[in-house]
Amino acid sequence: MTLVPFMKQTKLAIIGAGGLTGKELTSLLSHHPHFQLVHITSNQVDGKHIRDVFPELSHLPDLVFQKHDTQVPKDVHIVLATPNEVSLDKAPEFLKEGRKVIDLSGTFRLHDQVKFEKAYQFPHTKFDMMDQVVFGLPELFREKIKNANFVSNPGCYATSAILPIAILGNLRKNIQGPVVVDAKSGVSGAGGRTEEIKFAYTHVYENFRAYKILSHQHEPEIEEYAFVGSEPKEILFTPHLLPVYRGILSTIYIQFTNPVDPKEIQEKLQAVAEKEPFLRLYKTPEEIEIKKVQNTNFLDLGFKTKGNTLVLVSALDNLVKGAAGQALQNLNLMFGYPENLGLVSI
Amino acid sequence: MTLVPFMKQTKLAIIGAGGLTGKELTSLLSHHPHFQLVHITSNQVDGKHIRDVFPELSHLPDLVFQKHDTQVPKDVHIVLATPNEVSLDKAPEFLKEGRKVIDLSGTFRLHDQVKFEKAYQFPHTKFDMMDQVVFGLPELFREKIKNANFVSNPGCYATSAILPIAILGNLRKNIQGPVVVDAKSGVSGAGGRTEEIKFAYTHVYENFRAYKILSHQHEPEIEEYAFVGSEPKEILFTPHLLPVYRGILSTIYIQFTNPVDPKEIQEKLQAVAEKEPFLRLYKTPEEIEIKKVQNTNFLDLGFKTKGNTLVLVSALDNLVKGAAGQALQNLNLMFGYPENLGLVSI
Amino acid sequence: MTLVPFMKQTKLAIIGAGGLTGKELTSLLSHHPHFQLVHITSNQVDGKHIRDVFPELSHLPDLVFQKHDTQVPKDVHIVLATPNEVSLDKAPEFLKEGRKVIDLSGTFRLHDQVKFEKAYQFPHTKFDMMDQVVFGLPELFREKIKNANFVSNPGCYATSAILPIAILGNLRKNIQGPVVVDAKSGVSGAGGRTEEIKFAYTHVYENFRAYKILSHQHEPEIEEYAFVGSEPKEILFTPHLLPVYRGILSTIYIQFTNPVDPKEIQEKLQAVAEKEPFLRLYKTPEEIEIKKVQNTNFLDLGFKTKGNTLVLVSALDNLVKGAAGQALQNLNLMFGYPENLGLVSI
Amino acid sequence: MTLVPFMKQTKLAIIGAGGLTGKELTSLLSHHPHFQLVHITSNQVDGKHIRDVFPELSHLPDLVFQKHDTQVPKDVHIVLATPNEVSLDKAPEFLKEGRKVIDLSGTFRLHDQVKFEKAYQFPHTKFDMMDQVVFGLPELFREKIKNANFVSNPGCYATSAILPIAILGNLRKNIQGPVVVDAKSGVSGAGGRTEEIKFAYTHVYENFRAYKILSHQHEPEIEEYAFVGSEPKEILFTPHLLPVYRGILSTIYIQFTNPVDPKEIQEKLQAVAEKEPFLRLYKTPEEIEIKKVQNTNFLDLGFKTKGNTLVLVSALDNLVKGAAGQALQNLNLMFGYPENLGLVSI
Repeated sequence: MTLVPFMKQTKLAIIGAGGLTGKELTSLLSHHPHFQLVHITSNQVDGKHIRDVFPELSHLPDLVFQKHDTQVPKDVHIVLATPNEVSLDKAPEFLKEGRKVIDLSGTFRLHDQVKFEKAYQFPHTKFDMMDQVVFGLPELFREKIKNANFVSNPGCYATSAILPIAILGNLRKNIQGPVVVDAKSGVSGAGGRTEEIKFAYTHVYENFRAYKILSHQHEPEIEEYAFVGSEPKEILFTPHLLPVYRGILSTIYIQFTNPVDPKEIQEKLQAVAEKEPFLRLYKTPEEIEIKKVQNTNFLDLGFKTKGNTLVLVSALDNLVKGAAGQALQNLNLMFGYPENLGLVSI
Repeated sequence: MTLVPFMKQTKLAIIGAGGLTGKELTSLLSHHPHFQLVHITSNQVDGKHIRDVFPELSHLPDLVFQKHDTQVPKDVHIVLATPNEVSLDKAPEFLKEGRKVIDLSGTFRLHDQVKFEKAYQFPHTKFDMMDQVVFGLPELFREKIKNANFVSNPGCYATSAILPIAILGNLRKNIQGPVVVDAKSGVSGAGGRTEEIKFAYTHVYENFRAYKILSHQHEPEIEEYAFVGSEPKEILFTPHLLPVYRGILSTIYIQFTNPVDPKEIQEKLQAVAEKEPFLRLYKTPEEIEIKKVQNTNFLDLGFKTKGNTLVLVSALDNLVKGAAGQALQNLNLMFGYPENLGLVSI
Repeated sequence: MTLVPFMKQTKLAIIGAGGLTGKELTSLLSHHPHFQLVHITSNQVDGKHIRDVFPELSHLPDLVFQKHDTQVPKDVHIVLATPNEVSLDKAPEFLKEGRKVIDLSGTFRLHDQVKFEKAYQFPHTKFDMMDQVVFGLPELFREKIKNANFVSNPGCYATSAILPIAILGNLRKNIQGPVVVDAKSGVSGAGGRTEEIKFAYTHVYENFRAYKILSHQHEPEIEEYAFVGSEPKEILFTPHLLPVYRGILSTIYIQFTNPVDPKEIQEKLQAVAEKEPFLRLYKTPEEIEIKKVQNTNFLDLGFKTKGNTLVLVSALDNLVKGAAGQALQNLNLMFGYPENLGLVSI
Repeated sequence: MTLVPFMKQTKLAIIGAGGLTGKELTSLLSHHPHFQLVHITSNQVDGKHIRDVFPELSHLPDLVFQKHDTQVPKDVHIVLATPNEVSLDKAPEFLKEGRKVIDLSGTFRLHDQVKFEKAYQFPHTKFDMMDQVVFGLPELFREKIKNANFVSNPGCYATSAILPIAILGNLRKNIQGPVVVDAKSGVSGAGGRTEEIKFAYTHVYENFRAYKILSHQHEPEIEEYAFVGSEPKEILFTPHLLPVYRGILSTIYIQFTNPVDPKEIQEKLQAVAEKEPFLRLYKTPEEIEIKKVQNTNFLDLGFKTKGNTLVLVSALDNLVKGAAGQALQNLNLMFGYPENLGLVSI
């Protein structure tokens, strides 16, 4: 709504643009006045024009998928929307060439190598790089992101759980026992374009199930970042598969050592919500619903208390605030643009 | 609700029981007082107990899937729920052994070999058998079915179009030009258990499309049977894929040589509906909906007229009246049981 | 599959048969060899034939909805599928007339009047009757139900949480802290036939939300019955609304005072599952899904452990094991029929 | 992707912005570099901020719903997204004040008063205005729209049928007999925000039905505009309700007096598609699906021939090309902006 002239001055490539996240970011960037997408890759659909892969993006001019290994033109910065193994290979290469890199995979999020290799089931051969990477959650690491050359974009489930807990700030010190994160996601977060029978219409529609109970790779990610600046606690994380396309709602149960004061929680959360462009606090947690966040970059938040218990409910769009939108928020910060540019209206 | 003692006196085998139709029939037979299912086969899941393949049928005792080629015990009659090529092989064998056979595939429906081979794309090597098979549409061929050893169960789309047209009787002689059959089916009719990407949740949900326009194999089947006892007309048949699990609704447009008299249509349809156990005539075609026929053996029917035009709307459950339910209706007739036994309440 | 002659010898009335539960029970009873439904009431659709209200039950003979206050013929026993206030009025009347009564409302479940009136928001004027009512959970109170004249059928959410916890038996004594019950239900459990905008297609489809967090009326019901025979614990119960028609999946998080031994849990649950006709234990909780229990009377169960934590996952069909099916299971017990009659295959 | 500076120089009001179409247009305008939305009205939610009615538009600054009758500031042009009766009142008033007006209701589309009053069931008291209004289908009336002060935006179903037929051009003269338009729409086209029970989740989900067969108000609209510049033919139009949120797919059956030449059709359609910014022609009609047009302003088109028959399949998003998107396309033309501005990427 502001008078921002379109001057496409920063060039970007998306490596692995053939998936749902790549598509979402491609669409977002087409609205952005300053980023210009000049290079997209996919080893599945290389050679095809973007209009043949994503008909709804057919207005985008001159974009043809390249192989991942095609040389990226100079002065182009990099978004990695690739599988973990590809990110592991490519991120160091691109950084060495002096490009800024944001990685949407899980490869560079965990600082505990044992936990990483247990969660992701392959050896991390570039673990020394964990010193230079910044975790791309602007609400927690905004200043670092502004100065970063290498940002690791958070997981979708992880974002929905880390933020509500982390912004409790010093209240976190009185948490006792494990924190339960019961999360429910639409299929685009879990297997949007896969051909596995478990994602067939007849297996998802009119159905609901849990998966990777207490063993999902986002559990250690939540444990590492939800308690930044505080004493770490155990997270009990269970993801579930909803018969919807996009959206995550997480219900978080926290026990405190003493009765929870709803006013105190309200003040704490409200103080953060007021200064954060993409965090909305609701009067009651029953107002939170995934429909309200679909196609937006908001994380919606509400809470209820009872005795020593605090229940937090959060919702976000797994493809936007949980992936491509948050990546663009980070890119805006990395390149000095207003943080919400291209994101306020999707 | 009638006082029918359970005496399982007629033994059945389902060849190809691992698909959706086989499952539906297995479930129906478990309610039936006289049919006893003693043998089920599947080349995909042979060796598995039925409870491990279909958890909701786990109460059925002692049923383990065999290979198709496993010897079927004597005195067991046969339901073929197999692909066309398997039915072509198996039907003659079982008939030779003196068993009654009902085939749910499309193999033995068309009496025009050229049309068959065009529609099904493989050579029909047993076409001499077309003399002895009876088309299993009880509303048209009830008496023949009662005396048949070999019945070919109609296609789901075909049933939804043949019946509404055929029961017009002598009114059909004034039809001019082609009859348009615009049909819409849930996914269980099209590819319930397949792993093709076009049946992935993300491709079916919030989507709708036509397929095999004017080239579906049920088009010649409708042409052959909708005009039995009358002059044949051209059928223009287009199937569409609905984002629902079960149900077909067909909208049929017929032109007459002169203005249609709604009273005449009403009387003709009502006369048939009153004596048919599974045909329901509604006051207006807008009342027809697939929800009303799901999990029932009914074909619901309504019509509207305007000038020379008659629009018929029909609905049925593709797995019941369109497949397993109609098969059971036929089996009841073939073995001398009340036609609606095991079907009146599903 | 057993040889049970159909002899309709026990007459039943359903008061409040116009709702989804009444419809489900009507359908179930039509398969039952011994119960005969002779009287149905509804103050909304009185005067209408059942076929005009529920087209898929149109085969049922001679059933016309009466007003609730129409005299029920002698020798007819009573199912109350009525709102709480109607059950409060009607149950004592019918009992006084010497009829057996099963009530599907929440009116006669809680033995703590204060908790009842807080949960249900109206004064309970017949609280003295709480001495004679039996809670209709066969897995816990089978022998009492057999001898009961008055049974209160459990809530759908409540069943999905009470059973998994209660069958832990003496292991419950080492539970510490509150037990989290995070439950997700299809719309037929929440407001199937209501006209509220919150149940409009556009508000439910592609959506998900929590409601009545820590304040649902089933929370005290779970607290009362999950710990029968053990020390009571606090329950933290949050229901959510799934965009599906039928089914509840509950994810239950329990903390113990010491590390949980998965073998011990397995043995305890397996011992119960083996003797219970409607409880299925799975090898992993990820196998549990609502599709597997839809249209069945099963409660499916699985678990995972990690340190001091036990996660239980249960699923059931809210209209069957959560309402009408469990009611029929209770009716079978109350009238001396095999417990699974009319329920093994739905 | 073009370098268009944001200079909000044309002010707009949306009268009746509280519905789905108003919301869609509000969202589209927020991306547009030159239109500035300054005034929105709704008699249902007046006084509320847009963020409280549509949370996903919460970034839009300073927009509060007014009553319809609130004075609109000078130099503001008008979009009417109001019911027919309100448009009838308001359009002449606003025009008299010298504002440009585009009306999204059906009030000013039909030039035959008898047909109008039969279709819309109320007397048209401003029929003299039909001389000055331009039908807002750019593919047919682009030049007139550019010079118009008063545009009537086409209906969603009507657009999906008029365009495919009209662009056949001189081939239309050989059409014989009525043209069948069998159309299927998502719920947002039919009753998105209504509270009627027929739009309850349980009535739409897993369901499908026809409505207003041969009597929908878009039938005369198609008849008037599909044959502009040719001899009029009868249209047989049947709308159906899909269990999806947005999208219309129409299957159109046309008989010709002689065999149809597919090459001739292909050339005719391709010539138009090549110069139209929002018309996409596919190689086969089976490729058309509503998923491909959702959230876009495209009308997708394909065809198949067989003997004298031509089948056309079209798809569009009822809220975009069928309403708000087409309105914006028209507004661009009316105010001299590039036709696809704000529409190429949604």
